[in-house]
Amino acid sequence: MSTICGSDLHTISGKRQEPTPIILGHEIIGDIAALGDGLEADGFGQRLRVGDRVSWSIMASCAACFYCRKGLPQKCTHLHKYGHTGCNEPPGLTGGYAEYIYLFPGTAIFRVPSSVSDEIATPANCALSTAMNAIETIGFEQGETVLIQGAGSMGLNLVAALAEAGARQIIVTDVNPKRLELASGFGADFCIDIAASSDEEILTQIRDQSGEHGVDVAFEACGASVAVAQAVEALRIGGRYLIAGLVSPGSDLGIEGNQVTRKCLTIKGIHNYRPEHLGQALRFLEQNCARLPYRELVGSVFPLAEINEAVRVASSGKHIRVAVRPTH
Amino acid sequence: MSTICGSDLHTISGKRQEPTPIILGHEIIGDIAALGDGLEADGFGQRLRVGDRVSWSIMASCAACFYCRKGLPQKCTHLHKYGHTGCNEPPGLTGGYAEYIYLFPGTAIFRVPSSVSDEIATPANCALSTAMNAIETIGFEQGETVLIQGAGSMGLNLVAALAEAGARQIIVTDVNPKRLELASGFGADFCIDIAASSDEEILTQIRDQSGEHGVDVAFEACGASVAVAQAVEALRIGGRYLIAGLVSPGSDLGIEGNQVTRKCLTIKGIHNYRPEHLGQALRFLEQNCARLPYRELVGSVFPLAEINEAVRVASSGKHIRVAVRPTH
Repeated sequence: MSTICGSDLHTISGKRQEPTPIILGHEIIGDIAALGDGLEADGFGQRLRVGDRVSWSIMASCAACFYCRKGLPQKCTHLHKYGHTGCNEPPGLTGGYAEYIYLFPGTAIFRVPSSVSDEIATPANCALSTAMNAIETIGFEQGETVLIQGAGSMGLNLVAALAEAGARQIIVTDVNPKRLELASGFGADFCIDIAASSDEEILTQIRDQSGEHGVDVAFEACGASVAVAQAVEALRIGGRYLIAGLVSPGSDLGIEGNQVTRKCLTIKGIHNYRPEHLGQALRFLEQNCARLPYRELVGSVFPLAEINEAVRVASSGKHIRVAVRPTH
Repeated sequence: MSTICGSDLHTISGKRQEPTPIILGHEIIGDIAALGDGLEADGFGQRLRVGDRVSWSIMASCAACFYCRKGLPQKCTHLHKYGHTGCNEPPGLTGGYAEYIYLFPGTAIFRVPSSVSDEIATPANCALSTAMNAIETIGFEQGETVLIQGAGSMGLNLVAALAEAGARQIIVTDVNPKRLELASGFGADFCIDIAASSDEEILTQIRDQSGEHGVDVAFEACGASVAVAQAVEALRIGGRYLIAGLVSPGSDLGIEGNQVTRKCLTIKGIHNYRPEHLGQALRFLEQNCARLPYRELVGSVFPLAEINEAVRVASSGKHIRVAVRPTH
C-alpha cells in the first residue's frame, strides 16, 4: 500500500520538480516478495522472511560518505530516495505507486507490528518518522508548552507524540476546522482556527494558554512561511522553533535578526529523518494507535488502476491521506 | 577604566534608545572602593578586598525569576544592566563613564588576573564574554571549519578563542582591511575583504578554504543583516549559525525556509552571556593575551573630562576600542 503525500501532489502539479519518467509514492509498506543475499534481520534485529509485512526508510544511504558520518544519512552523497528517483535506469522500480518496489542496499527495513493496520502503518515512514526527528532535534522536554502550526499529517503526528512525551500544553493552529477537531482527538489542548482570527487575536489566545512568557517550543508543520512570524512572536525568550514543512522555494522566513538575538531563539530545520526514527514511529504506533484516531487519517483506498482519481481526491484536501493499494 | 562599545555609539546617535538621563558605559573594570556586607568571594571563589581590581557581569540578576531559572540571567525580570539604566533613581551611579559605580546584589564579580592590563581587561565583560557564550551556545567542536563575519571586537575575540579551541580553519570577512590584518594576528587562517569582492567571489573563496561541503559553523558578529544570506550559502548541510551582532531593529534575515529545512540548519541567537562566561573570558586572557595582539585593540585612552573627544574618536572607527579613564 502507498499513501499520497502532499509533496507528491506538489510534484504532480509542477510546484516541485523531480526527474521524469518517475514512479511517485514514498509512503509505502509491502510484503517481501524476495530477499537479497545476506539480508537477515530488520532494524529491530528481528528475523526477516519472504512474506513479512515491512516498512522502510524513505531513502537508502551508503553509511560511509561525509554526510552519513555526520549523522545525516538523508543527505547521503549516494542517496536513493524512493518516489524521488527517475525510473529510466535499472532497477526502475523505485516508487510506491506500483505492484513491486526494489529496495536498495542501505535501506533500513522494519517489520510492521501485527497490531498496526496497513492504513495506519503506510504513512509512518514519512510524517510520523519526521515528527520523531523533529522532537529529538529541537530537544523537547517533558512539561513544556508547545505550539504546532498545521494539523496535517505531520502536525497530527506531532500532537500525538508530544502528548505522549508529556507536553504540559499543546496548542494547534490550522485554517481547517475539521483538521483542528482531529487534532483535539490526537491530544491537542487548545486549537485555533487562524482563518477566523486576526494575528492579534491569535497571539492573545496563545498567550492566554501558554502563560505570559510564551510557548517553550514551536513546530512549523504547515508549509506556509507566513506562520513563521507568528511563532517567533509566540515563543518565549529562549524558545526553540523547529521548521519542517517549508520545503518549497520562495518561502522567506521574514524574521528580524533583532528578535533572534534579543529573544535568544533557536531555529532548526529538518528534512526527513534517520532510520531509527522509523523504528520509533512503528513502536509508537504499536503502543498508541488503538487509543488515537489514526484510522480517520486515511479517508479512501483506491486500486492502482484508479491512481488518477486517487490523486484528484487527495488534491481536494478532504482527507489527511488517500491510499493506493496495488494488487498482483 | 571603561571602553566605548559600538552599542554606546548607537545610543548616542539615537539608533538605539535608552532612558535618559543616563551614565553610559558597560565595558568596565574598577578598584573596589567599599565592600558591601556579606560580599566575601569573587566568582572564582577568591577573597575580595577593598582595593582589588575587578571586572563584573554586564548585568545584575535575581537568580529566582522564570528566566534566571531557565539559564537566562541576562533576561532576568528584575534586571539591572550597567550603562543601560537611567540615573534618576538611587543609586544613580550605574554606568562606566564615571569615577564611581555601584554594583547591585546579583552581580558576578571577578578579580582581574594581575598579568592582564587595564586596557585588555576592560572590554572582556562585553565582547569576549559574549564570544564565550556564542561558542558554547552553538556547540563548537574541535576540528571544525569556521566562518566569522566581522572583525570588530566580538569577531576578533571569536577568532582568538576558536583558534585556541582547535578550529581546523578560521575564515574571517570584513569590509576593513586593517581589521582583517588584526584578525590574522589573532589566528585567522584566511581573510576576505568583502568590500573588494562580489558575492560570487566571496563564496568561491570560502568554498576553496572550507572544502566542497561548506563551513561547519558560522558566527555573525558584524551587525549587518546582508551577511546572513552569505553565511547560509557558505554553511554545509547540517551547519550551525550563531547570530550575535544583529541587535538593531530592521534587520530582516532574508533566509528562505526552504534552505533551513533542506540544509537541516541550526540558527541560534544570543544576547549577552551568563556570569561564568566572564570567568572564562578572564582566564582566557590570563593564559593567552601576551601572545596575541590584544594590546592593539584599545587605540587611545582619554581622561573622563575628554569624553566627548573620546566618543568622536570611537565613532571614527579608527580603533577597535577607545578607553576612558576617570581619575579621582
